[in-house]
Parts: sequence; structure tokens; C-alpha cells
Amino acid sequence: MIVEVALGARSYPIHIEAGLLGRAGPLLAPLVRDKPAGRRVCVITDETVAGLHLPTLTASLSAAGIAVDPIVLPPGEAAKSWAGLERLCEALLAAEVERKDHVVALGGGVIGDLVGFATSILRRGCGFVQVPTTLLAQVDSSVGGKTAINAGAGKNLIGSFHQPAMVLIDPAVLATLPRRELRAGYAEVLKYGLIGDRDFFDWCVANAPALLAGDAAVQAEAIAASCRAKAKVVAADERETGDVRALLNLGHTFGHAFEAEAGFSDRLLHGEGVGLGMALAFRFSARIGLCPADEAEAVVRHLAEAGFELRPRALGLDAPGARLVAHMRQDKKMSAGRLPFILARGIGQGFVAQDVDLDAVTAFLDEMVAE
Amino acid sequence: MIVEVALGARSYPIHIEAGLLGRAGPLLAPLVRDKPAGRRVCVITDETVAGLHLPTLTASLSAAGIAVDPIVLPPGEAAKSWAGLERLCEALLAAEVERKDHVVALGGGVIGDLVGFATSILRRGCGFVQVPTTLLAQVDSSVGGKTAINAGAGKNLIGSFHQPAMVLIDPAVLATLPRRELRAGYAEVLKYGLIGDRDFFDWCVANAPALLAGDAAVQAEAIAASCRAKAKVVAADERETGDVRALLNLGHTFGHAFEAEAGFSDRLLHGEGVGLGMALAFRFSARIGLCPADEAEAVVRHLAEAGFELRPRALGLDAPGARLVAHMRQDKKMSAGRLPFILARGIGQGFVAQDVDLDAVTAFLDEMVAE
Repeated sequence: MIVEVALGARSYPIHIEAGLLGRAGPLLAPLVRDKPAGRRVCVITDETVAGLHLPTLTASLSAAGIAVDPIVLPPGEAAKSWAGLERLCEALLAAEVERKDHVVALGGGVIGDLVGFATSILRRGCGFVQVPTTLLAQVDSSVGGKTAINAGAGKNLIGSFHQPAMVLIDPAVLATLPRRELRAGYAEVLKYGLIGDRDFFDWCVANAPALLAGDAAVQAEAIAASCRAKAKVVAADERETGDVRALLNLGHTFGHAFEAEAGFSDRLLHGEGVGLGMALAFRFSARIGLCPADEAEAVVRHLAEAGFELRPRALGLDAPGARLVAHMRQDKKMSAGRLPFILARGIGQGFVAQDVDLDAVTAFLDEMVAE
Repeated sequence: MIVEVALGARSYPIHIEAGLLGRAGPLLAPLVRDKPAGRRVCVITDETVAGLHLPTLTASLSAAGIAVDPIVLPPGEAAKSWAGLERLCEALLAAEVERKDHVVALGGGVIGDLVGFATSILRRGCGFVQVPTTLLAQVDSSVGGKTAINAGAGKNLIGSFHQPAMVLIDPAVLATLPRRELRAGYAEVLKYGLIGDRDFFDWCVANAPALLAGDAAVQAEAIAASCRAKAKVVAADERETGDVRALLNLGHTFGHAFEAEAGFSDRLLHGEGVGLGMALAFRFSARIGLCPADEAEAVVRHLAEAGFELRPRALGLDAPGARLVAHMRQDKKMSAGRLPFILARGIGQGFVAQDVDLDAVTAFLDEMVAE
């Protein structure tokens, strides 16, 4: 299946197909140039993914007459740093990657965000292809061109908009993904239902158990629906200058506060933070009378059933509300003292609230962390 | 005088006027937002420029009700580095610069390139204003949106295209510029004549002595002509995807080799490298029969009379041709084993040559460095 991201001259296809990794060669071949050193492509990945999936991709490229220059980074969020960016850029320069070349990002969100950013600034911009290997990257971060590293002052504060030339999604790679990572990625799937598609939310409730248990057909269906939803949003509002793309931040502002509190460590994965954050966004929406209480509780119940830990205290992240709000203030979207929140009038009815009272958020969080 | 850079939604004015620094407040005011901390703007500069010009700009902004948060960097090319970029970005985040804010780059090419790049990636992009204080920055680097830092592998290899919201040029600041810097900047002025405007070359020959002696009216005229020429080129080919903008690299590929040989140190300023490089580009063009020998010699003679040192040996940079060509190969424009050169069929007739024989360049340089 192909989902198109319609962005004029920057349009690109998302290919979704089980086993695609082993058939990537012919798809990538048109993006690889003939050079004096032959037909070669840099593939950037991490040690974990290299062990699992690099041989398959390399064999497929090799069969298409393309040699691979692998750049294998240590796994983990630390790669998305100033030092990691410098190391990768210098490695790409050493590999003589040129403006018209494409490199391949094979991995999860960290690899995709880092490689996307590095290629946006290498010789003032070269091309890249996303080959996401986690559910989270497949349904969210590999599509849409947001790239970033983490700054000392906060997560994803340094980055760019740089669209890939192609996204190759092989749902079969999820078979090797740890269950915890799968659930974390599922938060971003569910998000598309919560912000704008009540029917998809119902589908999620019915199918989450199968998806999380590893049902490949259900996973592929969830990925395709998510990519279609995201492609539509990105085509309408590429650089988040309006409210459309901002809706994708549902759960991210509340979640961000707890991720920051956890020091962006494995104590709370990004998707876990988003799950917790979406529960809080719906509860807060209900609290201030925007959303029916039973709708908010339906969201909370589904997240809990899917295995998300929604009690900050159980996570050891029961910081005072004021401290959590202080984390939120470092958000990229903070503007002239105001922070836009994604709230909801019901399931499938997300919207951008510009005038949220941060004192009310503080009081709400004080209560929530006490639970 | 105002020169407009016509780039659709990214269009911006270049204001050129003696004494403008002291009248910058009202021009900048519309770009400064009201925030809880009041009306404030970050001004990034270096220690040298801070001593000379920051008080004037600060007073003008203050009179317009705008407070200045100065960020003062050490002078010199070292700021245009990975470490310098990280430090500046973290300082801008600490100053709570937001997406819709503008910061001011007050300085020469190093400050402009660095601040332009930092703002292009800060929170995925915020705004900036160029207030160039060297002739080179006023006639070239502050206009057109090329931003960069230097990589370990070479100069300006990491960067972006990020247009300023406004350029404020005060020719009066050149009164404090060292003579050597003034001459280096003049190379970029002369370049506009050499690539496309024979009449302007003649004007340069007639007016260079006055310009280099500090004649403010002549300097202002040269700046305006240069900005008009550059604005036209940038409007036609913003991202150098065609040949139009590439013409601005006249002298840069040859010059780059010697700058690299000098370790990008004060032994050879960028503009001095461009001057030397333009002389070599014309001589090489004559050597391979493209350009009449007397036209090439007229260019060389004028550069020598303007005080440019054109003998690599006298500069201590008489490296073998092969070594100089190896430096050239690290150029951003290197593509599939080929390096485009800007050559000339005569004064005012620059063009992009895609099929230059690097062995011929090597032999030519071996001869030139022996002079």
C-alpha cells in the first residue's frame, strides 16, 4: 500500500508492506546516484537495529547493485544530542555524502529525528529516506519532516522541517520490538482517533489487544490508518503555522512535563508520556467542563486496559504541579507567555486552546499526582 | 535607500544609510513582540564590535522602548564551530527566544553566518535581522540567507538557507574597520562587476582608491550597487539550484584551496582568498582559451593595484597543485566526482563550467605557486 504525502515539490510516498525491508533495493535504487566510487548509499542505524535488520536491508540493496556504507550509532536517546549530531555530520562528510545524495535512516524515532536533522544541515541540505523500525516511528515520527535533537534546555528544541524523499514501512519488523515499545507506539496510533476520528477510536478499542499481542494484519491496518491521518494533517499545515498540525501534540504537553521530570530516561518512554498526557488532557478537558466526563473516563479506561501506567505516583514522578508546569513552559510552542494546549470537547474532537489558565493546570496536576 | 530582496513570503528590505545604527530602533520595533518580560530583543555580537557599535544600537533601541539582551561572543572564526553553535543556541534558549521572535546579528560575516544558522534551527526556526559591520558582510554575506558553521572536514559545510527579516546597513561603521578588512570586503564588491557587469568593473577601477581610502560616499555607492546585484541573483535562484547563484562563487573555489592551506587563519582572510581566487579564475580562463589574455591581465592588474597579494609564494601558501585541488574537492558543490568552476569569457562574462579538467587545474596551480 502507498500513502502519499502531498506537499507539492516536496511530496513523497509512504510504502507500507510486510517484508518490504527485504525488497527495498528496487525502491531505493532511483535515489542512489552513480559516482566515481560506484553506487553506494549510507545507512545510519543503531547497534540494536543493526543486529536485527541491517543485514536484510543490505542484502536487498546489494542485489540491486548498491553497496552500503553503514554508520552504526550507540542505541538510545543520547545520540539525539549536540555531540551526536556533530559526530554523525562529520561521519557523513567523511563518507563524501553530497547535496544530491540520499542517506537512509534505519531505526526508531531517535535515528529518524537525528538523521533527518543532520541531512537538513549537511552542505545546507541533502536527501534522506526513512525506514522506521518501531511502531512509534512508523505511525508518527518518520512522517511529516519534523527533525530535532535535544538541547540542554529541553527536548527537541533544536531542529528543522526537512521532508524525507520516501518512507519505507515494513510492519514485519515489529515482531522483534519489545512489548513495552509496541505499547508506547500505540499511544500515537490512538491519538489520531482521539483528535479527529471517533470511529477509529472505536476500532482501536476493539483491536488494541490483538495489535499489542503482535497480530501483524491488525498492526498493518493501524499503521496505514495512522499514516493516512498524519499525511492529511501534514499536507494541510506542514510547518505548524496553523492549528491543524498542532492537534498532533495532544498529550504531548502534559506528557512532556513527566518526561522532563524523568530526565527523558527509560523510566518513561515518549509514547508512555503521550499516553499519560492524553489521559490528563481529557481529564483536564472534563474538569473545566469542555468534555463530557464519561468520554474522558472512556479514554482513561482504554489506556489503562492497554497497559499504560496513568498514576504519576506509581511512576515515581509525582512532582508538584508548579514544577511540572515549569517544565511545560520550556515547550517550543510557548509564545509571549502563553502555551497552547490540545484539549478535547469529546473523543474525536480535539482543538487548540490558546487561553488555558496555567494556575488551573497547576492545581489539576497537584491533584492528579496525589492519586 | 532601500533594496528589496524579492522572495515571495520571505521577501525583505535592505536599508542602506549612513548613521542607520543610531536610528535602528523604529525600524526594528515592529519585529519586537510584547511579552510578559516586556519588549526585549537579543543582540548577538562579538567583543570587538560590542566595544565599537553596541552602545549606539542599544541606545537607539532603548529610545524606542526596547531593552537589549546582549550576547557577546569572542571575536574570530572559531565562533563558527560546532561548539560555538551549541553555546549560542543554549544562550538563546536561556534568553527564552521563541519561534516568532527576532534576534539581531550585529557584526561581520562570522556573526551573521552563525546567528543566521542558529536561528534557523532554534525551536525549528525563529527570525533574525542582519546588521553587518564589515564591508564583506554588507555587500555579500548578510544578504541572501546562506548561513553556516565550519565542520572539521571543511569550511561552511554545515548550514542552512534562512533569510533574515531585514538587513540594516550603516556604511558609517566602516570608518572603524581596519584597512585590511576593508580591502578583503572589496573583493566581493569587484566580483559583481567581474561576473556580470563590465560597467561596474570600470566604476570599480576608477573608484577603488577612494573606497579603500575611506570615502564614505563611494563606499555607500559600492554597497548599494552590490546589494542590488546580489538581491537580483538571490531572487532568481534562492537555493542555488540553477547556475545563477553559483556565479557568486567566482574566485571562491580557487580561493578556498588557499584558505584551507592557511588553515582558515588570519594569514589569508576570506576576501583576500577571493581576490586571489578571482585572479586565478581569470588567468585559468585565459590559459584554456576562454578569455582574452588582456582582459585577464586587466583583472590581475586592478587587484594588485588595490593591494591584493596575488603570489601564493609571498603568502607562504605555495603548496603543490595536487594538494590545492584536494582542498577544492571538499567543496559543498562537489557532485558525482565533478566540481563546477566559475570561469569567464571576459570581464562581466562569468559562467559555470561543469567539465573542468582537474588535472589541468593542478598543472596550472603548480605553475602559479612557483611565481
